Amino acid sequence: MNVPVFGPAAIEEAAAPRLVLDAVRDASIAHAEGRTTVPPPLHMEFPDADGDCHVKAGWISGAADFAVKIATGFYANPAIGLPSNHGLVCVISARTGQVRALLDDRGLLTAWRTAAAGALITHALARPGATELAVFGTGQQALLQAVWLAELRPLTAVLVHGRHPDRAAALCGELRSRGLEARPATAREAAGADMIVTTTPATSPVLDAAHVREGAHVTGIGTDMPHKNELPPELFGRARIIATDDHTQCLDHGDFGHAVRAGAAAHDSDTPVGLLLKQPLDRSATAITVADLTGVGALDAALASAVLHRLLP
Amino acid sequence: MNVPVFGPAAIEEAAAPRLVLDAVRDASIAHAEGRTTVPPPLHMEFPDADGDCHVKAGWISGAADFAVKIATGFYANPAIGLPSNHGLVCVISARTGQVRALLDDRGLLTAWRTAAAGALITHALARPGATELAVFGTGQQALLQAVWLAELRPLTAVLVHGRHPDRAAALCGELRSRGLEARPATAREAAGADMIVTTTPATSPVLDAAHVREGAHVTGIGTDMPHKNELPPELFGRARIIATDDHTQCLDHGDFGHAVRAGAAAHDSDTPVGLLLKQPLDRSATAITVADLTGVGALDAALASAVLHRLLP
Repeated sequence: MNVPVFGPAAIEEAAAPRLVLDAVRDASIAHAEGRTTVPPPLHMEFPDADGDCHVKAGWISGAADFAVKIATGFYANPAIGLPSNHGLVCVISARTGQVRALLDDRGLLTAWRTAAAGALITHALARPGATELAVFGTGQQALLQAVWLAELRPLTAVLVHGRHPDRAAALCGELRSRGLEARPATAREAAGADMIVTTTPATSPVLDAAHVREGAHVTGIGTDMPHKNELPPELFGRARIIATDDHTQCLDHGDFGHAVRAGAAAHDSDTPVGLLLKQPLDRSATAITVADLTGVGALDAALASAVLHRLLP
Repeated sequence: MNVPVFGPAAIEEAAAPRLVLDAVRDASIAHAEGRTTVPPPLHMEFPDADGDCHVKAGWISGAADFAVKIATGFYANPAIGLPSNHGLVCVISARTGQVRALLDDRGLLTAWRTAAAGALITHALARPGATELAVFGTGQQALLQAVWLAELRPLTAVLVHGRHPDRAAALCGELRSRGLEARPATAREAAGADMIVTTTPATSPVLDAAHVREGAHVTGIGTDMPHKNELPPELFGRARIIATDDHTQCLDHGDFGHAVRAGAAAHDSDTPVGLLLKQPLDRSATAITVADLTGVGALDAALASAVLHRLLP
């Protein structure tokens, strides 16, 4: 029998928000507690085609399955009508090594685990009464971060800041079609929101730390390589709580690393996201909190495994 | 549209011996000439299940496709009626990053490229008139090395040496059913053949260098980890030509590395297999020649791509 392959439609139907949030929350806690195996990724470059390929793997210790995720980015594709990103997730039994299934997800699972991880830590660290969200960036994650946070708490307004006014307007339209109040905002306005999520590929900070209000929470999800940087070091300097999804990764190529190298934060001043998701947090109404997410391979494994459990019970 | 998956039957039908030999030969030459990309593999361990997972990737520079191979080995599987090895090969466009197909080959392609690589270098280095082959080991590769070499030159006899007489007898039966003269042999008899291929997981040499005759050729394909060792250092000391499929790998975890560390061979005394396949070789009738094969990821890519070209022309 051939290995079963599930496409995006089947995966989307199986991956209900509650399933995704539970899988990502449990995997984040396991990662914080050292109960995950995440080997160094495999990487290839295709300079003539402006392309690359990353292979990442992850396992929650003791789980029945592990996952190997193949992801490509070929950045000239849009010119020939193809998406830049492609790939799939291979779910493999951790007991017998048999390939259980392939999830031909077109990057959906990575997008959802990123959105769920951002929404979970934003919800956990923001003031209980905070209802105003600002997103920096106008791409898929800007949309998903708002939509998934709205699964966790009511949002009265979503401020959208993007460099291109037409894209910001389009995202506001999309958010309104999903029942969220949304409007474009300047960087200064957006930086003044109760909750802020940055979702850009920026290489220098997208907001001014001085514009962030006391009591605000900021989550950065866009910084996943050493040359990227969304959040200013001064923001980490003002923060009472700094959450990182992986201490080593965030030091190496996250916004936290920029802050530490700038002398604005101590290298051991962070707390694992998973611990903050596990324990309800005592935060003052005036504290600023920051979360730096760089992406954890074990979350992919947990989510792929949970989705497959729905598809192949 | 979902990614197409091809199973073992379709792959076996597409992979005619000539196609496999041509793909492996061309890829070996490309590798020798530095025209391949082979990133460090990804590796995971599952100690409770006595299992591991390796992910290897390879690309022949300029080729339309590259390949990512996922291979698992779970060594307690036979007790529950499952094969120890599983995995698949993902063929991806090197121009757009789109996944073109999955080859659910159950390890067939790796077995064939190993067999083809062994047969090609054995044929290239052995004396033109040599027709007697000895194989050490009684597993799948012992069978395949003989069968594939018989595609390249006539064999008048195959001597089989194994630790278990019943397995050696069974392999002889299988070889005879494929039209080859075969009989069990002692290690000393086998070491005296014109052509010798070792295919074992041995951790100490399987033959005595003093028993190898002048004019013989020896290929070792079993040594793929630092603790393994099939060919004695003294054999390399007697060899006029030493061929390696990858200089760095063979130094690190091949029989060649054992010989260099023992002082029996200079660390730069080897010649790339690909160059010896490209250029007809001037060898004296009394020279001993040795080839050390550790397995090259670029060969997987080339073979998977050639097979897929037949399946999806």
